[in-house]
Amino acid sequence: MIVGGFKTAAIASGIKAGGVLDLALIYSEKPAAAAAVFTQNTFIAAPLIVSKKHLEETGHRARTILVNSGNANAATGEAGIEAARICVEALAGQIGCPANEVLVSSTGVIGRPLPVQTIKASIPKLVSALLPTNIEMLARGIMTTDTVPKIATAEIGGARIAGVAKGAGMIHPDMATMLSFIMTDAEMPYPELQESLQYAVHRSFNSISVDGDTSTNDMVVVLANGVSGIRPAADEFREKLLDVCTQLATAIVRDGEGASKFVELIIEGAPSEKAAHTIGRAIARSPLVKTAIYGADPNWGRIVGAIGNSGIPLKSDRVDIYIGGVPISDATLGQARQKLSEKEVQIRVVLNSGSASARVWTCDLTEGYIRINADYTT
Amino acid sequence: MIVGGFKTAAIASGIKAGGVLDLALIYSEKPAAAAAVFTQNTFIAAPLIVSKKHLEETGHRARTILVNSGNANAATGEAGIEAARICVEALAGQIGCPANEVLVSSTGVIGRPLPVQTIKASIPKLVSALLPTNIEMLARGIMTTDTVPKIATAEIGGARIAGVAKGAGMIHPDMATMLSFIMTDAEMPYPELQESLQYAVHRSFNSISVDGDTSTNDMVVVLANGVSGIRPAADEFREKLLDVCTQLATAIVRDGEGASKFVELIIEGAPSEKAAHTIGRAIARSPLVKTAIYGADPNWGRIVGAIGNSGIPLKSDRVDIYIGGVPISDATLGQARQKLSEKEVQIRVVLNSGSASARVWTCDLTEGYIRINADYTT
Repeated sequence: MIVGGFKTAAIASGIKAGGVLDLALIYSEKPAAAAAVFTQNTFIAAPLIVSKKHLEETGHRARTILVNSGNANAATGEAGIEAARICVEALAGQIGCPANEVLVSSTGVIGRPLPVQTIKASIPKLVSALLPTNIEMLARGIMTTDTVPKIATAEIGGARIAGVAKGAGMIHPDMATMLSFIMTDAEMPYPELQESLQYAVHRSFNSISVDGDTSTNDMVVVLANGVSGIRPAADEFREKLLDVCTQLATAIVRDGEGASKFVELIIEGAPSEKAAHTIGRAIARSPLVKTAIYGADPNWGRIVGAIGNSGIPLKSDRVDIYIGGVPISDATLGQARQKLSEKEVQIRVVLNSGSASARVWTCDLTEGYIRINADYTT
Repeated sequence: MIVGGFKTAAIASGIKAGGVLDLALIYSEKPAAAAAVFTQNTFIAAPLIVSKKHLEETGHRARTILVNSGNANAATGEAGIEAARICVEALAGQIGCPANEVLVSSTGVIGRPLPVQTIKASIPKLVSALLPTNIEMLARGIMTTDTVPKIATAEIGGARIAGVAKGAGMIHPDMATMLSFIMTDAEMPYPELQESLQYAVHRSFNSISVDGDTSTNDMVVVLANGVSGIRPAADEFREKLLDVCTQLATAIVRDGEGASKFVELIIEGAPSEKAAHTIGRAIARSPLVKTAIYGADPNWGRIVGAIGNSGIPLKSDRVDIYIGGVPISDATLGQARQKLSEKEVQIRVVLNSGSASARVWTCDLTEGYIRINADYTT
């Protein structure tokens, strides 16, 4: 898919050894409205500090996003911020735009100085590699230990939305970074764009869990350059954006480290949507539940225990659990075990304490996960 | 050790198959001051509801604690409470004490009806098996998948304290229950006894993590019958009680499912003790940190990530990390790797954001853990 007015590129700059793609660029021909969501981790990495500041300065407008893998530029202090600024200025000079219309993003090992000279020297080559929305190349350029590129697209009226994502949870054994960049040629000015993004991120990226860790570098950005001339209704746009984000988020879970099963949790009958979401995430985080799913064990007591651990007060202590549509009771354990041995598992929990609901996606916890994360060496 | 005025017993009643010990009793010759701490899980099990009510009714006095394994009597609704009451009344009748001086505790599979008749029929045999503080038998009687009994003792003046514990974290692959019962013949009236217990539990049982799950049945009880005639100073008593609780809590971590290493986390330079504790627990919960320790990988970025995930705001973003006394830097990774390959690992984190500190204990995360919990079948 070509999203009007956007070009992308990815090259092997030498941050990583072996000629692997490690530097990517997203470029909009005209300044785009830019909305972003950043990590909740206390230690926010240097590129996020710089990008946040730029968005404030420009009133949420951006031309380009520079993304490197192989080095997170996190826990690097003032020197890290200065390093990010040097990259920004080099790129702004090459493109010919104000420095604060450049956003930066990094993923990789933390606590190591960013190889600024390597990046700076590669910028002319990177800019000359720009092609109209070569989205697969972009998706590959931001991969670390991902096993597949993650791309999602949608259309709204005649306008287009395309997004890429990498990592999440423990995809990257070092730092668990989740990045996503979304381009649209729809016209969607800043406050609405930010609202749409928050709506979509909450129900997609914030509704997945591989292992419950949040990186210092997590970041989702959407750029809307309006090149199509089409201005969709805000509520239609946010649903399309949610659609793209959900495709990307579930792709991340499917590629979870060591995962052998994809799990959809549907929480119903909750006192509020927030409560449903919190309970879903508590279940998705529980190692006892995740190992039981791996072992195809319909051990519903572990699900009840995880719900109780969420800290959400419930009106009823009756909880109905359905595994692959099978209502769980002593009589149905055999059927439930069969449903749990499939590659795609759906668990529905009815709390009988209200009418709100939420969906959360996760994967099982396997020996493969332990091996990947224990064998990785700093 | 004999704690004056206490007797204990454990028998195989038939709740579990194969003649395994599954019913235990603690009995004080005279009514004892009783302090207790119960699970924070939303779904509190029937025996805890009954025990809480009894403690309120008697003004925190108890004669006896009946403990069964093999069935948690949790998620059993009104019928579960009635089942617990029937056991209480049978025991009170046999001993000849008011029903509300009986406390009850259960651990095992949740959601199955308690085998009341089996328990009731075994009570005469259980009571006749009582012997002065046969503490090893008691410790074995409350074991489920624990591999060793957990006992701790202390003396204060001429008075004695003895405690037993089982499980914790994921020791029990089904429900992760942590139980501990502590007897003392010191004279320690109720409000002080409760304060001492809360002080000790916070710094011991609440400072360990195997996998972060909290059971519906977690319970710690201390009975003080005053038979020694010795009344220790409250602050000395609470330190001795903490000593006993710490011995039991660390024994639980050492016996953690699949654990190959025992890990002590020392958090210093925190803005408050609560913050230090929360950060310690966040590190202890992180699968990324726990797998890195398993793999002897001095990947300090994972520790920084976990600290940032705790949600505690810090004054400084400088964090100093010591592994087995080695200050971590690029130059010391080899030494740190060596320290991480030992059976006992100490990690000290200096936050440079205050003067408070806390200790937390955990274990590593291994393939053994996954196997135990995936292969367990309901």
